[in-house]
Amino acid sequence: MKRILFLLFVLLPYANSFCQDSIVIGSKHHIFSKALNEERNFWIYLPPDYNSKKFAPAKYPVVYLLDAESNFHSFTGLQQSLAKGPYAMTPQMIVVGICNTNRTLDLTPTESNRVAFYDKSKKFFKQSGGNKNFITFLVKELRPYIDSNYRTSGYNILNGHSFGGLTATNILLHNTKLFNSYVIIDPSLWWDEEIMIKKADSIFNTKDFEQRSIYVAMANKISIPQDTTTDMARGIRKFEKLLKEKKPKNLRWNFKFYENEDHGTIPIPAEYDGLRFIFKEHLVQVKEAVHNPGLVSQQYAKLSKETGFSFLPSESFLDWMGNFCLERDQVNSAVTFFQLAKTYYPNSKNAYLSLEKAQLKLEKK
Amino acid sequence: MKRILFLLFVLLPYANSFCQDSIVIGSKHHIFSKALNEERNFWIYLPPDYNSKKFAPAKYPVVYLLDAESNFHSFTGLQQSLAKGPYAMTPQMIVVGICNTNRTLDLTPTESNRVAFYDKSKKFFKQSGGNKNFITFLVKELRPYIDSNYRTSGYNILNGHSFGGLTATNILLHNTKLFNSYVIIDPSLWWDEEIMIKKADSIFNTKDFEQRSIYVAMANKISIPQDTTTDMARGIRKFEKLLKEKKPKNLRWNFKFYENEDHGTIPIPAEYDGLRFIFKEHLVQVKEAVHNPGLVSQQYAKLSKETGFSFLPSESFLDWMGNFCLERDQVNSAVTFFQLAKTYYPNSKNAYLSLEKAQLKLEKK
Repeated sequence: MKRILFLLFVLLPYANSFCQDSIVIGSKHHIFSKALNEERNFWIYLPPDYNSKKFAPAKYPVVYLLDAESNFHSFTGLQQSLAKGPYAMTPQMIVVGICNTNRTLDLTPTESNRVAFYDKSKKFFKQSGGNKNFITFLVKELRPYIDSNYRTSGYNILNGHSFGGLTATNILLHNTKLFNSYVIIDPSLWWDEEIMIKKADSIFNTKDFEQRSIYVAMANKISIPQDTTTDMARGIRKFEKLLKEKKPKNLRWNFKFYENEDHGTIPIPAEYDGLRFIFKEHLVQVKEAVHNPGLVSQQYAKLSKETGFSFLPSESFLDWMGNFCLERDQVNSAVTFFQLAKTYYPNSKNAYLSLEKAQLKLEKK
Repeated sequence: MKRILFLLFVLLPYANSFCQDSIVIGSKHHIFSKALNEERNFWIYLPPDYNSKKFAPAKYPVVYLLDAESNFHSFTGLQQSLAKGPYAMTPQMIVVGICNTNRTLDLTPTESNRVAFYDKSKKFFKQSGGNKNFITFLVKELRPYIDSNYRTSGYNILNGHSFGGLTATNILLHNTKLFNSYVIIDPSLWWDEEIMIKKADSIFNTKDFEQRSIYVAMANKISIPQDTTTDMARGIRKFEKLLKEKKPKNLRWNFKFYENEDHGTIPIPAEYDGLRFIFKEHLVQVKEAVHNPGLVSQQYAKLSKETGFSFLPSESFLDWMGNFCLERDQVNSAVTFFQLAKTYYPNSKNAYLSLEKAQLKLEKK
């Protein structure tokens, strides 16, 4: 037994150090989906503060990312970069990347025997029209799993490209409230005789979109001339036209045509711009806020108004601001920021101690 | 002893599965640098084909990335995405991310007591001017380590932002041939009374840059008005002017001003555009090449001419092309692609077998 314990003692740190030498950006998970009758894999990225020992446990928005296999590494890289530091352009967020099994089936709204627009000689889409079951999986199975296993704030974003963009459009139109915002990248709106355009044409007349935000990105097909057909482009331009003309109620939207991107390269710049559009009001004028701490709350009020969701500054941001003020001898402002941190994150020992320290400093002045 | 073996048997797969459930993008390494007299950490990303069991071991270009702590995740994500699939915009590459110890010391060319332009009340730069030793570390220690431990092709890129961009400019001017191309992002050319501008002013008159490529990106400081000074912008604009007026011999360059990016957000779009600029001739018109396989060699000849380095199509690309041709019943073209794969990668069993199979198919026709 002693030898076994000794071996455990020797082996465990080794196993540990093996993993420590790896640069890990997420973890792989799976659940069995009744709706889809199969095991489904998904990958999870947690933001840097999520497991912080310094700050109190907080809640985070969640991005649901379709086509995780190809997008997870780059998307989480963009997100991590945009959410970094005091000049962050977005909040820190959890990313849930959903892996495919039968992509065409899951990510199309209707069964369609139509051939692919890019090769009319073959029937590519033998199985299609599985959006309904896939959405049930998202709403009834994956979302509850994520919400019960992770600290989620209730703000959810869906990011989809191509058929994923088609699916995002379908959810926006028919399950509007399921996500707070949608990044819709070069969506396959040509699908099934432009079925989603027809739906949008009528739904945009009446539906209240209750402050959803959508970012629609369209690629240029010119760099790969062999793939150029007008089907895809026409569908997306029609959607843009509907957005412009129908002005859907309480839908905040942006549309951009990417001159230098084709269907394959567009995800990175579109995801980057999409996140920046959604969180347009996130950036705080840090150096002004040193002299006018009220700016932070004003900025977050703007952000909350624009997104229809109550966002709060993160504890790490407030802590950074407080210490930045101390460095610049703006003790009053520091007290305000640490006080805010204590109010928003009442379980934080760090906020409590920092506030106490700053208050002492103020008294000594 | 049996019990111990049993325990090993039970524990090892567990340790393994723990790592398997992680999404790993790289590994952490360190060497002791004599030039810097300290242990230096660096992170390594290997492209998807690097450890492929299907394809023969190949050699890869290397990107040396400064400020790895903040850029590694996003940069490798961009790179992985740009190098993906048959329409890849860049080759698959190894990324070596260099972590900082004393950033200002390492990443500045001269010792300067000048205060920071963004806060003239304080002397921020107590230790500076360590470029010389840092470059020795790069050339004499890190590069040989990478070249002897990894399959590198000899094409090297340096990516630097801010002080990293200043360092990249210094290397471009004084150690020109050390890298084949440079991505220089919002460089701190204001450093030490614009010392690097002065150097460039004279070096650009005479030096032969021997087909180096450089991409220079400049941020807009307007989104953070408190940080706006003209020092940084002036330096970069002067550099642009020198490039335009002096037309340095055999230097391929591009310059872009980023209207919507500040000093902190510019790395992602600049890295993306920088890699695309360097490998502008990388994209193959796949569907045309099905009918005209010679296009691939023509494209790579263009790429090689523009970069001054002999690039070859990857085996995975040739294999994909061959199989794509077979699917489209273009057996002649398939044979050509598999033949190319066999010629460029003579150790590949896959290329050999694929060629044999395609040739048999051709004979049966």
